[in-house]
Amino acid sequence: MRKGNASLKPFFEPRAVAVVGASRKSYKPGHVIFTNFLQPEFKGKIYPINPKTKQIAGVKCYPTIGDVPEDIDLVIIAVPARVVSQVMRECVDKGVKAAIIISGGFGEMKGEGKKRENEIREIIKDANIRVIGPNCIGTYDAYTQTDTLFYPRHRLARPPKGSISFISQSGAYGGAVLDWAASQGIGISKFVSYGNMVDVNEIDMLEYLESDPTTRVIIVYMEQTANGRRLIEIAKRIVQKKPIIILKAGSTVAGAHAASSHTGALAGSDAAYRAAFNQAGIIRANISDELFDFALALCSQSPAKNNRIAILTNGGGLGVMATDELVRREMRMAELSPRTIRALRQKLPSRVSVANPIDLTGDADTNRYKIALESILRDRNVDGAIVMVLFQLPAIEPGVVDVIAEANEKYGKPITVCAFGGGFAESCRKILKLKGLPCYSTPDRAVKAMECLVRYGNYLKRKKNRWSRLIHR
Amino acid sequence: MRKGNASLKPFFEPRAVAVVGASRKSYKPGHVIFTNFLQPEFKGKIYPINPKTKQIAGVKCYPTIGDVPEDIDLVIIAVPARVVSQVMRECVDKGVKAAIIISGGFGEMKGEGKKRENEIREIIKDANIRVIGPNCIGTYDAYTQTDTLFYPRHRLARPPKGSISFISQSGAYGGAVLDWAASQGIGISKFVSYGNMVDVNEIDMLEYLESDPTTRVIIVYMEQTANGRRLIEIAKRIVQKKPIIILKAGSTVAGAHAASSHTGALAGSDAAYRAAFNQAGIIRANISDELFDFALALCSQSPAKNNRIAILTNGGGLGVMATDELVRREMRMAELSPRTIRALRQKLPSRVSVANPIDLTGDADTNRYKIALESILRDRNVDGAIVMVLFQLPAIEPGVVDVIAEANEKYGKPITVCAFGGGFAESCRKILKLKGLPCYSTPDRAVKAMECLVRYGNYLKRKKNRWSRLIHR
Repeated sequence: MRKGNASLKPFFEPRAVAVVGASRKSYKPGHVIFTNFLQPEFKGKIYPINPKTKQIAGVKCYPTIGDVPEDIDLVIIAVPARVVSQVMRECVDKGVKAAIIISGGFGEMKGEGKKRENEIREIIKDANIRVIGPNCIGTYDAYTQTDTLFYPRHRLARPPKGSISFISQSGAYGGAVLDWAASQGIGISKFVSYGNMVDVNEIDMLEYLESDPTTRVIIVYMEQTANGRRLIEIAKRIVQKKPIIILKAGSTVAGAHAASSHTGALAGSDAAYRAAFNQAGIIRANISDELFDFALALCSQSPAKNNRIAILTNGGGLGVMATDELVRREMRMAELSPRTIRALRQKLPSRVSVANPIDLTGDADTNRYKIALESILRDRNVDGAIVMVLFQLPAIEPGVVDVIAEANEKYGKPITVCAFGGGFAESCRKILKLKGLPCYSTPDRAVKAMECLVRYGNYLKRKKNRWSRLIHR
Repeated sequence: MRKGNASLKPFFEPRAVAVVGASRKSYKPGHVIFTNFLQPEFKGKIYPINPKTKQIAGVKCYPTIGDVPEDIDLVIIAVPARVVSQVMRECVDKGVKAAIIISGGFGEMKGEGKKRENEIREIIKDANIRVIGPNCIGTYDAYTQTDTLFYPRHRLARPPKGSISFISQSGAYGGAVLDWAASQGIGISKFVSYGNMVDVNEIDMLEYLESDPTTRVIIVYMEQTANGRRLIEIAKRIVQKKPIIILKAGSTVAGAHAASSHTGALAGSDAAYRAAFNQAGIIRANISDELFDFALALCSQSPAKNNRIAILTNGGGLGVMATDELVRREMRMAELSPRTIRALRQKLPSRVSVANPIDLTGDADTNRYKIALESILRDRNVDGAIVMVLFQLPAIEPGVVDVIAEANEKYGKPITVCAFGGGFAESCRKILKLKGLPCYSTPDRAVKAMECLVRYGNYLKRKKNRWSRLIHR
């Protein structure tokens, strides 16, 4: 039975939540999940369910779901696998709208586990309930503070509000990514770990996020898709509005084999995925870092109109490395117009090489960056700029951050920034990110992020041309 | 004139240093360089040279090098390019053993600059002095605290004592790398930025570091070599004792062009470099992160005997990603022996998949890691292990760090570690590094570091076989 997208809303905006398996023992997943909902930022009602306890953290405990006197939007189930089907029956009887089954011990195991999973499918088949899991860590919504992650917050920090949403087939990896994002000050809208997909899969989530107003970019970790044809179909539509980045793991034979014992499903051929992703305009991440590197660029920068990129630096070595990386990818070094070259020659010291990459040299100050950056962004031969700053150099003031942000705003062309180094440079990276600039620790990462803006721009352009050809026929 | 390696010692262990261009103005390079030598950790004498000042920071100032009443080992020159040749003449007259010319405005520029550089060459040709630079930032020795870097320490942190030495053609990039290393707690033995190579080049430095007792691994950033044939010749000899890792920038046509305006020299063909590096057993880094990622592995782990690697994780997704990355490279997934599989089946819960990658699952505790890690390291089919830990999971205690370190010590097989995430995971990464384990933030980095141990091991083995064949002939 297909159910509308609105049916997924209780996973992120529940008015009343019950945690089955809530416990007073702090090491139990049910304890962590229950106490997450006690944060004042969560505005809904919360009910602990446990037949052996009268109250937890001062909140009255109910023996079963059926005993709760009010309606429940979302039930989180963190009890042993063998009792999950009983709990699910109670949920259906109670008219619960949505359930997240955290428990493992289902389809990812052979024999008994597979049987249990089929039993769940049978129970929910004709019921009016949506189910995430089993074998997952559920959802996190930074705006409503709906948080079903069973990790203590001192171990796994929660990211602040932001505009990236993250769909992950792997719970443990997904959680660790959130923790990393929080440490980098990167904001999140919604997170979901969807596990064994007894009901909700990545396609349902993509469709839900398509119309989510706080989601600007969608990133996905998957080992296999629920339905390749449908994924491509809806991705084609969604990427017109917001970019989709997918890290598809299990892309080698050995990796696919490992994936099959991880989630119990079989990964498809990598070549098929690659072709399909290209066709649908899905951006592919090859390694973990790229997921957020690309998302940061896409959620703050406009796509590049073409692939002619200028590089600006105060350290020659960085310029050389970025150039190497750029021309190896789907980009070209922009040829500055004679007018730009004249302007730069006139305004910059003679030792500055005014060819692209522009090395402003080690004594470049904020003003030299301003002159050069404005000149190249004004140039019609330039579609985007990679700006690299060695903040270690004494001549450079932190104010260069404002210069870059203002030029980005004024000219609207995409910029990616590299601030290489530790301590002071790291602080500057964080400020740049707060100002909405995608900032990276190494030249290659800044270059790859620009490539992703070029490829997304290129995809949108191809689409548009195809449409206009159809219209003019 | 070829001079012996001992002649380079004053660059790192000078007993008396003079700074020409020392200044009271804190923004001047000469000021920062001079005050670096006032740190109590520097045990030599220090003389500021400036004809316009009587004293700086309470230290008597001399008008010229010739006026200093005692012998000088090392002179650091931070004055405008046009006066450098005069200072160099004074150095020669005084019998100074070594000079570092920080100043730019030489061969990296056309016309006048090139002429000035030739003049310097002429002055030092028959003199008994060694010269680093011009257009460089000089040297840093963590042990003697010889520090000619003109960057304030709050901008560019200095790394602690360690066993990696770093030779960089680019000063600004080299400095930023030190800053990054310091932020990661990574130790350094010696650093040198050698600039335009009027005398000392990367080959001299490699030969010096070959017999440096505190250097275990040498890393190099270069845009072009002073002498390709000689580089390969001496590298072949050195890598028998310590590994050399080179990041060769300017490897594309556009990058080489950028390099030529950076340092004024022409980069050679990339294919030639690649072949030569392979032949000499030099490990090549392709991106900035790899330089230290590889160095960390090589300075703490023994090279792998063969390429059969086992992967251990408590997060299935990480296992899948690491497997993908591993089989794409020069490695194979180790096939665990029947005995190991039996032992693991017996000692671990039934839901643990005992095939490689071994997913200990989310509730794995320290003891489960201990059992699995010892079993696989004992297995003769396993040449090395990649151990991944999601420290976010509540069941894992920080004590797992000791388990990994002890197993590494006990079995002697190489290990690389991945601890993914922010905050808590980052602290655990630092502890792992302090315990001598190469630890990385993402699966792909841990896998690439292992590959580098496999390749170095493979190179040494090939060499050994060739020798034994020669001997038995």
